[in-house]
Amino acid sequence: MCEANAYLLKDGQEEMVFENVDRLQFQEGGLLLEDIFGRRLILNARIKELALVDHKIILEEIDNE
Amino acid sequence: MCEANAYLLKDGQEEMVFENVDRLQFQEGGLLLEDIFGRRLILNARIKELALVDHKIILEEIDNE
Repeated sequence: MCEANAYLLKDGQEEMVFENVDRLQFQEGGLLLEDIFGRRLILNARIKELALVDHKIILEEIDNE
Repeated sequence: MCEANAYLLKDGQEEMVFENVDRLQFQEGGLLLEDIFGRRLILNARIKELALVDHKIILEEIDNE
């Protein structure tokens, strides 16, 4: 399986927030992550970087602009 | 290997633009994609959706706003 783990960048540190992510979609309410078991998480974040061979999705929080 | 193929959404159709993507990063010049062989492509696009188990990265072009 080619799922990845999602990390949120906080103060330069990567903090894992969600494992085994299969799907990711941008929605009005935020970034929707869905894992391989169908569990969902919505974050106010954007994708910063992907490293798929390392199974990593790096996210960063969206500041209120 | 858990690379994915990148598709650009055009008129509702997915057109494959880059295969075997490992890394993806947002840069000032656009979205940088790097495949597992180190080849790179820069697109003026954003990520619309990921479906990692299906090895798909769906991109959409950024309109000049």
